[in-house]
Amino acid sequence: MSVGPGVSIGQIETTIAAFEEPLPLESGHVLPRFEIAYETYGKLSMGRDNVIIACHALSGDAHAAGVSARAFASAVDGAGAGQRAQAGLGWWDGMIGPGKAFDTDRYFLLCANVLGSCRGSTGPRSIDPTTGQRYNTTFPVVTVADMVRAQRRLIDRLGIRGILATSGGSLGGMQALEWAVRYPDLVRGCIPIASTTRLAPMGLAWSAIGRNAIMADPRWRGGNYSDDDPPMAGLAIARMVGHVTYLSAASIAEKFGRRLQDREEYSYSFAVDFAVESYLRYQGDSFTRRFDANSYLYLSRALSYFDIARAWGQGSLAAAMARARARFLILSFSSDWLYPPSDSATLAEALRDAGVPHETHVIASDYGHDAFLIEEDRQTAYIRTFLRGLDA
Amino acid sequence: MSVGPGVSIGQIETTIAAFEEPLPLESGHVLPRFEIAYETYGKLSMGRDNVIIACHALSGDAHAAGVSARAFASAVDGAGAGQRAQAGLGWWDGMIGPGKAFDTDRYFLLCANVLGSCRGSTGPRSIDPTTGQRYNTTFPVVTVADMVRAQRRLIDRLGIRGILATSGGSLGGMQALEWAVRYPDLVRGCIPIASTTRLAPMGLAWSAIGRNAIMADPRWRGGNYSDDDPPMAGLAIARMVGHVTYLSAASIAEKFGRRLQDREEYSYSFAVDFAVESYLRYQGDSFTRRFDANSYLYLSRALSYFDIARAWGQGSLAAAMARARARFLILSFSSDWLYPPSDSATLAEALRDAGVPHETHVIASDYGHDAFLIEEDRQTAYIRTFLRGLDA
Repeated sequence: MSVGPGVSIGQIETTIAAFEEPLPLESGHVLPRFEIAYETYGKLSMGRDNVIIACHALSGDAHAAGVSARAFASAVDGAGAGQRAQAGLGWWDGMIGPGKAFDTDRYFLLCANVLGSCRGSTGPRSIDPTTGQRYNTTFPVVTVADMVRAQRRLIDRLGIRGILATSGGSLGGMQALEWAVRYPDLVRGCIPIASTTRLAPMGLAWSAIGRNAIMADPRWRGGNYSDDDPPMAGLAIARMVGHVTYLSAASIAEKFGRRLQDREEYSYSFAVDFAVESYLRYQGDSFTRRFDANSYLYLSRALSYFDIARAWGQGSLAAAMARARARFLILSFSSDWLYPPSDSATLAEALRDAGVPHETHVIASDYGHDAFLIEEDRQTAYIRTFLRGLDA
Repeated sequence: MSVGPGVSIGQIETTIAAFEEPLPLESGHVLPRFEIAYETYGKLSMGRDNVIIACHALSGDAHAAGVSARAFASAVDGAGAGQRAQAGLGWWDGMIGPGKAFDTDRYFLLCANVLGSCRGSTGPRSIDPTTGQRYNTTFPVVTVADMVRAQRRLIDRLGIRGILATSGGSLGGMQALEWAVRYPDLVRGCIPIASTTRLAPMGLAWSAIGRNAIMADPRWRGGNYSDDDPPMAGLAIARMVGHVTYLSAASIAEKFGRRLQDREEYSYSFAVDFAVESYLRYQGDSFTRRFDANSYLYLSRALSYFDIARAWGQGSLAAAMARARARFLILSFSSDWLYPPSDSATLAEALRDAGVPHETHVIASDYGHDAFLIEEDRQTAYIRTFLRGLDA
């Protein structure tokens, strides 16, 4: 672990690319037009063969590395990246930069905000061109596949015709996998981290609770809330639930224990007594200042629907993964109970059955699901070696 | 596991005992009067030496066994007891009855609804005699120690001067422990099940989220909601969160997997698609029909505050447990991540250090925290042997 600025890539601009050609979606609906916010780091090689796509998690955005020159600086996913965000650094700045895991002296990194988000790309709070009003819940439900298909439009626009690797943690890992299966001829390497080929039933449950909390907030108003009266209470609860699932029993015990917050004795009230209660309230409140409730619903739904075996293998994960031409590096973390190592083992088994080259490592860590944002050194060792192998 | 009626003890009345002498509380406040709802099963022996106190968990009540003759029949804690409640059977009917773990042919069982609950005993929705209005949040915060001290008044009233054993799961196990430490001269045996001497920090977090969900519901109105417009949405969210923490990843996967509910394809909407989503919504909604939001807050707070080492040992659990004169049988379940077996091991170590006789067993089960309501046969074997040993 080496949180902190280190050598950052410096000031970074976020670009918005507009796509006027309609995008057909998995649901059968069509998005008439859309925009994608993205950032790039490093230089595209003459042969255009050094492209790596970094995919972000639920609450992340295009600002993966460097210091943001725009207003997107505060987006981070999970607890691990807190200090980093305060410095305006990207959510994966410890992994993307000169000499880092994704070495910008060698590779051209691209990170795009997902469709459905609220961080620059088109999502439910965008204006529906056919009505001139915000979409809100008339925005079509988008899937991980739709996110990747929108990103494909972006790389076509940029003149990129091959991808050295796709990578990301959590929802980002789902996108990395979808890339490799959907566009096998484009993708040479795939690095899903703390991810899965389908959210486990307990993850479905937590996602549903988060959505219920938002939709139960009277301020949600069926999705048609005003900008100055959003369903902050519901979104804060959803975030608290999510946040605890990103941690581990050990990391919460280590960080907070049963320590009281600024007091020696219990208050015998419903105020904040324990440090962990104070922390959760802060996490919930601060999230509502940088994220949108409708986007949370859409991205949570995309997480729940993702199922590679269902989409590509008629229920067989091996059949689905047999489509891929990439090599796979699969990383997971011992204490991650939301995207457990057993999910990564299931993926590895399917790749083995499909005859697809892969390696898999379970990194011992107490940081739970958040470890993909924190355990930089240990991920770096595996990723660097894997990428050199693809280069060869 | 043997859910189902089996040989039940038959129809049971719930009794309400009123106590007019004020009860000083741990918080320093005084409860001017209170009522305790309780049930008994079996016969008090001539020597009055066959008393076992069964203590219930957060959403339970005095109706532990038999078929309720009153309106308290639907109270169950956790998922395991669903079928049982539908039949009007008590939450531990599989464990309490003729020939069962707590054999009513030999023992006199007592189960009292905890102070602060909404199931017959005095709690925040009771009438404050000094104002003639509901207490709501003017009800003093009560602790596990206060619950046990109220129960002590009850057994004094019943002329009971010795207790063969105290037992219960979860919050019930906390009461069982408090009994043994607070009244060492009274308690000969103690059987905490799926419990702990202090809620782990992750448990603190989940409890805080549940309380936040209730208090964030505008219908909560600072606790002063009307009977016909209670904060059902917030309470339902709190229950969903609690419910998932009572299960295990394996039990959710086994019971629901990613099965869709009454459909073949995704709805591409925020409706209920997955069976586990439907189940959670049902659990949340049905809970609001039998439980009160303010009581949930109070009992959740009591769970969070419980800390035997802090209360009785100046931080040392061994020093606290050294007060006990009882023998201990400690049961936990392998997949219980809310009250993990490691918490029971910590208790066992403290008892060893304190020289207090004890035995501890981790029962292999996929049912998570709920196992104490489900794994009847395996608990029965240990409990029956332990109780015979106390008899001797």
